[in-house]
Amino acid sequence: MARDACTAIVAYQVAAEDTDRFVTAWKEANEFIKQQKGVTSTTLHRAVSANPDFRFVNVSGWASADDFRNATQSDGFRRAAAWLEAYAVHASVYEVVPT
Amino acid sequence: MARDACTAIVAYQVAAEDTDRFVTAWKEANEFIKQQKGVTSTTLHRAVSANPDFRFVNVSGWASADDFRNATQSDGFRRAAAWLEAYAVHASVYEVVPT
Repeated sequence: MARDACTAIVAYQVAAEDTDRFVTAWKEANEFIKQQKGVTSTTLHRAVSANPDFRFVNVSGWASADDFRNATQSDGFRRAAAWLEAYAVHASVYEVVPT
Repeated sequence: MARDACTAIVAYQVAAEDTDRFVTAWKEANEFIKQQKGVTSTTLHRAVSANPDFRFVNVSGWASADDFRNATQSDGFRRAAAWLEAYAVHASVYEVVPT
């Protein structure tokens, strides 16, 4: 399982007034992520709705769940994403359900 | 804003033992959604992790936020997705943040 391609979906609870600060910080962390082994894409989504449960959701593609874990549990990511601690986060790794 | 292409991201809290029941019911509701105006894609993601906050996340593309709202607030959808009430749901409409 951990060797199959997967999608990481990370939902962030961000107050409206923190929007600009969040995007700036996320982009910095994303520069680190884009250089890690196995990442194939990262797409940050911003809610259009006025009072979303999650103002931002990052959907990223990975060659494997191990690659995602190695990248996000590295010391480099902890430094690049220290700002993450300011926001409640829900992160999981997913596979697509065939339809 | 409501006339631009957008992405609906819907996260479902589902107990492990309800996995099969959820997928069956979701596919039924998805058959309805796929026939609605403006929908361009639907992709159901199932968590690989053991204890995810959200076991399932549906990411769907829409020609506009209005199309998504019309489809999911219709009587037809309420009937097709009556099972939804069994699960805690977080749904919002998103735009992609340029990077």
